[in-house]
Amino acid sequence: MRTIIIGSGAAGLTTASTIRRYDKEMEITVITMDKYIAYSPCAIPYAICGEIPSFDDIIMHTPEEYKKNRLIDVITESEVLTVNSENNNITYKDSNGKINELSYDNLVIATGGSSFIPPIEGIDLEGVFKLRTIEDGMKIKEYAENSKSAVVAGAGAIGLEMAYALKVMGLDVVVIEMAPQVLPRALDIDMAETVKKYLEDIGIKFIIGKPLAKIIGEDKVRAIYADDREIDTDMIILATGVRSNTELAKMAGCEVGRWAIKVNEKMETSIPNIYAVGDCVEVKDFITGQTTLSPFGTTAVRQGKVAGKNIVGIEAKFNPVLNAMVSKIGDIEMAGTGMSELGAHQNRLKVVVGKSKALTRARYYPDGKLIEVKLICDNNKHIVGCQIVGGERVAERVDAISIAIVNHMTCKELADMEFCYAPPVSMVIDPLALAAENACDKFKKIKKE
Amino acid sequence: MRTIIIGSGAAGLTTASTIRRYDKEMEITVITMDKYIAYSPCAIPYAICGEIPSFDDIIMHTPEEYKKNRLIDVITESEVLTVNSENNNITYKDSNGKINELSYDNLVIATGGSSFIPPIEGIDLEGVFKLRTIEDGMKIKEYAENSKSAVVAGAGAIGLEMAYALKVMGLDVVVIEMAPQVLPRALDIDMAETVKKYLEDIGIKFIIGKPLAKIIGEDKVRAIYADDREIDTDMIILATGVRSNTELAKMAGCEVGRWAIKVNEKMETSIPNIYAVGDCVEVKDFITGQTTLSPFGTTAVRQGKVAGKNIVGIEAKFNPVLNAMVSKIGDIEMAGTGMSELGAHQNRLKVVVGKSKALTRARYYPDGKLIEVKLICDNNKHIVGCQIVGGERVAERVDAISIAIVNHMTCKELADMEFCYAPPVSMVIDPLALAAENACDKFKKIKKE
Repeated sequence: MRTIIIGSGAAGLTTASTIRRYDKEMEITVITMDKYIAYSPCAIPYAICGEIPSFDDIIMHTPEEYKKNRLIDVITESEVLTVNSENNNITYKDSNGKINELSYDNLVIATGGSSFIPPIEGIDLEGVFKLRTIEDGMKIKEYAENSKSAVVAGAGAIGLEMAYALKVMGLDVVVIEMAPQVLPRALDIDMAETVKKYLEDIGIKFIIGKPLAKIIGEDKVRAIYADDREIDTDMIILATGVRSNTELAKMAGCEVGRWAIKVNEKMETSIPNIYAVGDCVEVKDFITGQTTLSPFGTTAVRQGKVAGKNIVGIEAKFNPVLNAMVSKIGDIEMAGTGMSELGAHQNRLKVVVGKSKALTRARYYPDGKLIEVKLICDNNKHIVGCQIVGGERVAERVDAISIAIVNHMTCKELADMEFCYAPPVSMVIDPLALAAENACDKFKKIKKE
Repeated sequence: MRTIIIGSGAAGLTTASTIRRYDKEMEITVITMDKYIAYSPCAIPYAICGEIPSFDDIIMHTPEEYKKNRLIDVITESEVLTVNSENNNITYKDSNGKINELSYDNLVIATGGSSFIPPIEGIDLEGVFKLRTIEDGMKIKEYAENSKSAVVAGAGAIGLEMAYALKVMGLDVVVIEMAPQVLPRALDIDMAETVKKYLEDIGIKFIIGKPLAKIIGEDKVRAIYADDREIDTDMIILATGVRSNTELAKMAGCEVGRWAIKVNEKMETSIPNIYAVGDCVEVKDFITGQTTLSPFGTTAVRQGKVAGKNIVGIEAKFNPVLNAMVSKIGDIEMAGTGMSELGAHQNRLKVVVGKSKALTRARYYPDGKLIEVKLICDNNKHIVGCQIVGGERVAERVDAISIAIVNHMTCKELADMEFCYAPPVSMVIDPLALAAENACDKFKKIKKE
């Protein structure tokens, strides 16, 4: 029995490792276009600015280690050219340019996504970088070391992490974002403003609500044109989003939906014995039930586990997602889960918002950090989303709310909830309970009106 | 309408403030034996060692501020002598020694607890200290500044916090505990050992599983006798537990249970118009349904809110407790919620334990701290308890599990749960999910056997 996995990101390699964990016999072959595998793309901005000392640090395993320790073949720098789901085989071009054929019993498509490259003038100039692989990161770092200024296009988490990294390296940094706020897919504008203000305070400039119109330069970047003016810059980082890679899935005959490859909760595509995992698949949103994307490392890992288990005959299901996210940029942490207030309006759902501002330690205990909590409740008082921005201890609180959401907890139940307390690590009333109380108060007001 | 509240701890003052929040007319009188009010007793060890610069810092409000800002009368240094629930009045001796009478419409008994003083030889010598009020803390600090060694009797959280505080002050410290482990009511012995080892590594000595047999000295402490030997010491801190103060409740005719004053979920005692809150009441355990004590600041505050609301006619309920606790001692945090493995054995409940050891950040991200998670599941795979010991970000994770417990979540559901991830604040698979997976694996093994 042989499983072929196309792609060596978190989803592909987790599938491989999960199969091996339960099945010592299965032949497992991973084919990837990448040279380096088993690294965390999320870590690249931190390696660029030196918070993580070296790119080598973020590579966890080599192909040789996969072969030696887990009997998993990883064929690097190779491109899968064809998938034939009737004959159960594929062809690929290896690093020497040779075309090879290989048959499979199970195929896992983990082809991930590619950076979206906006079709604008000057996009091919030297000094314009996408940020997807570790090699992209290495190139950016090298170029930035010889640059004085940079523009980051896109103010999602990766864009802001990159902007901060380049600022730490000493560059003048401008972030340009088409949406009317930073972190448009992660946070509501009120919460995002706190993040923007923090970054402005350390000297990062923003152009918000305007597109990157064109890139100006002879053979290399000299400036951008945006907001009706030219802005000089030595380099440009495109953090303008990711598109799912679905070509091979389509070639295999797998059904592809609005966003990406369609899969069921076992991570099976519409074609028998072909699974798909990671950034190239669609998932179901826990709150709305609609299909969506979930381009997160955690999703990739959890999907890889589900696919791997099902391949070896252990029943496993991938649940609808909350798309919980967190990032830390300098001294500020930001996290969100479930539905945002904006998302609710877009879905024409009425929601009530509870907020709190509180410290992470007792008022009198030194070094407490301010955190802001925003809790989003539907009409039935069920918690459907949460966003937190602040100095520390943000991620785990959002995780606690994710647990509350999947259990259909109400703001009343959360307001009455028991939280542990000690002066060096918390306030006697937890910021989550305070935000829940605030939501309860608002429901009472609505009832009175 | 007048509400009299006996006691100015967190429970009493929260009751007072909650009444005032909803009722601007009610006459509210707090009568307390204390001189200082509105401080956090949990903060005293940190103020002794200087982590919190001064005792003044931990006092949040003065009686004058309560009067001025909230129209709440706080009568300090006064002892309630009698409660007459037939005539709805009390008598008290004020700070001048004068006896006064006062009638009430509602009475709130928030008399708290008193340190348990073990009846042993030498207990009255100079240099023996209890630790309950801020004045106790001030006395200990002053005495410790002129001492070279100390014995702490009792290795609960307060005992260990005190031991650490005195060690930081430069004293030689020995902790003596009768139970076979440190933190006997908070953690299982396997988790408690990590805490003990940390404290031993910074030079604190332990005598475990032995009673403090006697205290030796002429007019002041010179040594203790324990473990069949004399141990020289300049001072002794009694952290040997707390007993509920139920005398006034009994005098009023309120029913008192095995541990403390009986109350219903509205915090009403068995006598109409008399409420009781805080360390002096019994509560129901969420897991076992049995009555228990919950001597925590958070419980006091939540009970005060419930009592206050019910007094002004807003329906509110106090839920059964998990007795979630957390402490931070030096660089180690420890927290627990729900049922322990030992508690399960004592209740003859079969449980399965899942464990994980993991880092608080991605492996390659600097300064990640090790945390150990222990998850306790009942026979039906429902999570009933959790304990975490480690370097950071412990409290919020235990809170997340508290939410999982009250929602009857299973280890399977937690293992499949979505957690947010970014290299500077988490691992791609959360330590809680890892522990839950470990529990699932153990259930599978049991099924096979």
